[in-house]
Amino acid sequence: MPPAIISLLTDFGDRDEYVGVMKGVLLSHAPHAMLVDLCHHIMPHAIDQAAAMIAAAYRFFPEGTLHVMVVDPGVGGQRDIVFAQAQSCGFLCPDNGLLSGLIAQNILHRAWRVTNRELFAPTISATFHGRDIMAPAAGFLASGGDPEKLGPRKAIENLACSALPAAQPEANGSLWGTVVTIDRFGNVVTNIGRGLLTSAWEDDLKQISMIKIGNRPAIPLVASYSAVPAGELLATIGSRDTLEIAVNQGHAGMVLGVVSGTPIHVSRNS
Amino acid sequence: MPPAIISLLTDFGDRDEYVGVMKGVLLSHAPHAMLVDLCHHIMPHAIDQAAAMIAAAYRFFPEGTLHVMVVDPGVGGQRDIVFAQAQSCGFLCPDNGLLSGLIAQNILHRAWRVTNRELFAPTISATFHGRDIMAPAAGFLASGGDPEKLGPRKAIENLACSALPAAQPEANGSLWGTVVTIDRFGNVVTNIGRGLLTSAWEDDLKQISMIKIGNRPAIPLVASYSAVPAGELLATIGSRDTLEIAVNQGHAGMVLGVVSGTPIHVSRNS
Amino acid sequence: MPPAIISLLTDFGDRDEYVGVMKGVLLSHAPHAMLVDLCHHIMPHAIDQAAAMIAAAYRFFPEGTLHVMVVDPGVGGQRDIVFAQAQSCGFLCPDNGLLSGLIAQNILHRAWRVTNRELFAPTISATFHGRDIMAPAAGFLASGGDPEKLGPRKAIENLACSALPAAQPEANGSLWGTVVTIDRFGNVVTNIGRGLLTSAWEDDLKQISMIKIGNRPAIPLVASYSAVPAGELLATIGSRDTLEIAVNQGHAGMVLGVVSGTPIHVSRNS
Repeated sequence: MPPAIISLLTDFGDRDEYVGVMKGVLLSHAPHAMLVDLCHHIMPHAIDQAAAMIAAAYRFFPEGTLHVMVVDPGVGGQRDIVFAQAQSCGFLCPDNGLLSGLIAQNILHRAWRVTNRELFAPTISATFHGRDIMAPAAGFLASGGDPEKLGPRKAIENLACSALPAAQPEANGSLWGTVVTIDRFGNVVTNIGRGLLTSAWEDDLKQISMIKIGNRPAIPLVASYSAVPAGELLATIGSRDTLEIAVNQGHAGMVLGVVSGTPIHVSRNS
Repeated sequence: MPPAIISLLTDFGDRDEYVGVMKGVLLSHAPHAMLVDLCHHIMPHAIDQAAAMIAAAYRFFPEGTLHVMVVDPGVGGQRDIVFAQAQSCGFLCPDNGLLSGLIAQNILHRAWRVTNRELFAPTISATFHGRDIMAPAAGFLASGGDPEKLGPRKAIENLACSALPAAQPEANGSLWGTVVTIDRFGNVVTNIGRGLLTSAWEDDLKQISMIKIGNRPAIPLVASYSAVPAGELLATIGSRDTLEIAVNQGHAGMVLGVVSGTPIHVSRNS
Repeated sequence: MPPAIISLLTDFGDRDEYVGVMKGVLLSHAPHAMLVDLCHHIMPHAIDQAAAMIAAAYRFFPEGTLHVMVVDPGVGGQRDIVFAQAQSCGFLCPDNGLLSGLIAQNILHRAWRVTNRELFAPTISATFHGRDIMAPAAGFLASGGDPEKLGPRKAIENLACSALPAAQPEANGSLWGTVVTIDRFGNVVTNIGRGLLTSAWEDDLKQISMIKIGNRPAIPLVASYSAVPAGELLATIGSRDTLEIAVNQGHAGMVLGVVSGTPIHVSRNS
């Protein structure tokens, strides 16, 4: 039987011992688990960034993966900690909006509040529930523990859900979207999905050669970064299956002057 | 039987192949070991920072964990490499002060100099003993090797031990401490332990509502970051069980203008 | 039997989900594999930097390791993806020069183009073949899959091979080399190998006490960083077995004002 897989998504960065001690606690409770770092460089307290990342990433993990997410500005306060179950995987996190993207995908079918102190560390700090509550609870689950022992059920519709910005078509066929992230390569990842583009333009995307971003000169909509000369702007459907603006071997974020959260207007160059 | 766990604490950062090749060597000698990164972003050569981190972190790892620490400005010189054993885990590192925090906790009971060249790489560089000596020796231990084969015993009292700054109470009940680290979130972690505060103030900390840092206006001593409005200073007992100064969802290090090593004066607001 | 080891070398950095989802896909196809991060901080698109790193690092991994390298500026374009086999390990990567250092070492003996779509993700993005092609193919190989099923053979001499800069001796016994990298510690790692120095100077390096870098004052050639006082320049044979210029506990790259790619002239101080 393959080892249980636990993925970790946090805003802990890499300067401190925080990720390491969480792993120590996880392995104390689930010695055979396979730990995978999804990302630890979520901007501090950026719940929406993490919510969008897990919604884009979870489907690439093996069936049965337990995703533990700790972006927790309200640690020690009133927010719940919850475990939410989807068909093929589970999510353990503060109930502060981290599940928003998954709720929007309608994949969660059951959830529990994590309240059973018998499962937690003997002493619980008020500043690091990732280590003292979530890691022991995750170890319990990864070792085959029954979710019913975590605490009482919580209805999916009562889970915290912030409205992640959604892309919107306009009457004239253009779209308003939002920059979700500028990645390591400077690619501008938007929230405008392939399906929305196709339906807005009633067309196969392969028939469209040029699009416009705001009032800038039209840029080619191509299949890959290398379809334009190095240094030139392009649009493509990126690895999140959404519209991405890139510069071949350059930094589109700087060229466009946009950051996470910048609204972006996209139109067909007709 | 669960796999042997080896934790790694270094100042190697992430730009080079150094951590990766150490792992390659570790797995060559202990193919079933579970490798856990504690932290690789210790400031270059900052022995005290690593000594404080391992002293705070080791207790969260499973029994039997082998902690390998490589912060080694004297590599190739005269310092020993040692293996020190505690009740429930072991530590392999240059004997240059990295064990200071553990010695202060009085948890080490036996140590050996690591001198048996038969265990090392066939060719030993003079600049990377982490790869050529410590990784093979750690792999030997993680595979069940007998510590007596590492080399001769070394008395605990002969291990290098730099005096990590200790917090001190003053006659008037105030305390002098030191900033140990500013973490990723800007939290100011001090070396003033919960016990020292309690004894200095002869009181249950829950009875104390405000404290003063230096001459600044008093700030609340609260149970969690979110107990004050976003942007406001607070004091709390942090995840290392020491006094921590924070700004709820802000950066206390910048607000206070302190860095690692800054002395800090704490008094009860009476 | 020990788990199959897969090492990962990319330019993905740590801000995005890219490394994490590749690991998710790898474990979906090879649930028992042991994943090791070699490095993810290759400069974006810096094929030569990765080619030099893998050539220096592969020998430290266990026999049978599969090295997956994704530095792929031409993703979605015409370059092949290949699997190349050496005596004791294998390499899976875009065929864009990443194998250059290994070809120069003459260790590859067979290669295949990776073209069998049955092994890939059902949907293949045009921007992330690391996730959609290389990770599934690596999982296939790590699970014992037959390389012949990847696709047709490709002759070693047809693999992309950029000439990594090679150090050259001059008639007067001095050498021209290149700075390969400035590491985390500021050490200036050159491409001047120990063997070249020895042959150029017809001498045992231990007989040579001082060398000159360009027109700067001579610096000592010593066995370790700590052989000179803190803050002073030195030359040594570093962990890649090449000439390295360092400052004991300082930053030689800043002192010399060099970066990756800077030519460097070395002469014996006679």
